[in-house]
Amino acid sequence: MGIITIIGSGAMGSAMSFPARHNNHTVRLVGTMLDVEIINQASKTGYHTSLMRTLPEGIEYFQLEQLQQALVDVDLIICGVSSFGVEWFGKEIIPILPKDIPILSITKGMINQPDGSLISFPKYFSSLAPDMDFNAVGGPCTSYELADKDNTCVGFCGNNMQTLQRIKGLLETPYYHINLTTDIEDFEFSVAIKNAYAMAVTLALGISLKEGDIIHYNSQAALFGQSVREMQKLFSLYEYCVSNLHYGVGDIYVTVFGGRTRKIGTLLGMGHTFESAIQELEGITLESGVIAARVGEAVTILIKDGKASKADFPLLLHVYDIITKGITVNIPWKDFC
Amino acid sequence: MGIITIIGSGAMGSAMSFPARHNNHTVRLVGTMLDVEIINQASKTGYHTSLMRTLPEGIEYFQLEQLQQALVDVDLIICGVSSFGVEWFGKEIIPILPKDIPILSITKGMINQPDGSLISFPKYFSSLAPDMDFNAVGGPCTSYELADKDNTCVGFCGNNMQTLQRIKGLLETPYYHINLTTDIEDFEFSVAIKNAYAMAVTLALGISLKEGDIIHYNSQAALFGQSVREMQKLFSLYEYCVSNLHYGVGDIYVTVFGGRTRKIGTLLGMGHTFESAIQELEGITLESGVIAARVGEAVTILIKDGKASKADFPLLLHVYDIITKGITVNIPWKDFC
Repeated sequence: MGIITIIGSGAMGSAMSFPARHNNHTVRLVGTMLDVEIINQASKTGYHTSLMRTLPEGIEYFQLEQLQQALVDVDLIICGVSSFGVEWFGKEIIPILPKDIPILSITKGMINQPDGSLISFPKYFSSLAPDMDFNAVGGPCTSYELADKDNTCVGFCGNNMQTLQRIKGLLETPYYHINLTTDIEDFEFSVAIKNAYAMAVTLALGISLKEGDIIHYNSQAALFGQSVREMQKLFSLYEYCVSNLHYGVGDIYVTVFGGRTRKIGTLLGMGHTFESAIQELEGITLESGVIAARVGEAVTILIKDGKASKADFPLLLHVYDIITKGITVNIPWKDFC
Repeated sequence: MGIITIIGSGAMGSAMSFPARHNNHTVRLVGTMLDVEIINQASKTGYHTSLMRTLPEGIEYFQLEQLQQALVDVDLIICGVSSFGVEWFGKEIIPILPKDIPILSITKGMINQPDGSLISFPKYFSSLAPDMDFNAVGGPCTSYELADKDNTCVGFCGNNMQTLQRIKGLLETPYYHINLTTDIEDFEFSVAIKNAYAMAVTLALGISLKEGDIIHYNSQAALFGQSVREMQKLFSLYEYCVSNLHYGVGDIYVTVFGGRTRKIGTLLGMGHTFESAIQELEGITLESGVIAARVGEAVTILIKDGKASKADFPLLLHVYDIITKGITVNIPWKDFC
């Protein structure tokens, strides 16, 4: 059995303790400065307040100031912060981690470059610490259902297939199924762009609720199909390998039915602006909105530079306009044909 | 305005009257010998008993023996039969149709060839009447929601782009959006294979209901992602153009949430054999089961001939075994990784 230290005890970071404890590893869950109460509560009762589940037995809990202690003899470090914590993790945490231990990041998203390209978080982390081995998880997996041990297929990406196989060996369970790929950028792009398209599909929910107080599926499926079509074109534009497409498409599916993105997309579909939808949801932080905007921005730069065609991405650009320009929904159906 | 004659007044054939009447065409709805009661009822009250909707005003209703009368001066003939009626339509109806009028078929499915290939219904019809112009509709569209005027994106395929554009001009409405393609086989394959994969995704519904009386989405998304992955491999195997992939993927989405396939997949996921699931649903005719089995059979032939790898299609082959070999569900999760 190994020792796995999870840094960041939000819902997904903490949910990773389920497969880890299933395999009888020592699990050390370390809260960030935002997680003090989560760690306090979970260390007393085992209950995780935002995951809304009791965590597995036997987890060792740490506050951030005890991080060094949590890193002793560790076999795998899981970076469990959201995309809002990536810079903090890169600048404050990576420098104090042991150099020879692989990192597995659960963080979603990519970082924009001025030329319209996007880089993955593993690549960003590698730029800060070129000698360390950064890997990442992606694909359709909600934290709640991972905790419920629903069968889940994810992907792990990294530079080194041997490391990936070792990490898979640590975390694979009868319900947590792991594909491996060394196509880091292609894979991360696939699971990043799903944020824009999952929000796009949920717009149809709001539209049909507003029009007839009933949920329709033809319009959702139309937006889902258009999403796949645009994703294929994005893969082609960025010259990414399409064997990674299915991770993002599966992830759209689960995101349409999961938490915040569905709520915000439904409100947008009912006619709210992005700002008023966020207000309606009491100022939630919406990671998917940020990631969707980044992809939209990247593609907009490529269009301005004459490297991409506006006509290829009507749905992405509409979502981008909704998020960044304050417009209300008006699906450009005729631009899909 | 034109004259559109729909032959076959089942749910989807009849639903085509909505966009047709929206555009003020004369619509002649002709029942087959199976539709006598539907036509009797609808001609009296306008209500369609299996579509469970009132049809648009102004439709002219015909029983099959009045077909000749319904074909006078027609501009477009819609073949509205299910795949079970294709042979009948090909042998009994096509010979009496005017040769110079385009046909648009709503029929789903393909026909197996001994070498493991599949041919589309337009191609089959063309083999019977080489001088006639056969086109077809596919993509995510349930008859109920077309009747409800939910926004719907479909594809029309055919040999002649000018004909396709003319048909699109007749049927396009503010809610019925039409893409055109001359890739008939590629397109028809995409919307045929969705039958196997939609059933596959719904297996997860039954499994999670059986295990915990709750619907989970991680497992559905895992099967959805695996479906897309296998579909890409099937496109590659048959050398079909992947720009048609999104029609099938969107169609999986709507089929997962629509009628019979969802019901049968849920029962299968709960542990029923295919036969007992059909019995449970009072012996329904399940077009999607037949189409899924055909695709499974075609791929099985290619595997036997060494032209395809069994390892590439674990989900399709599991669905095929469920439908044809009486086995119960046991998702081969580990074969996905």
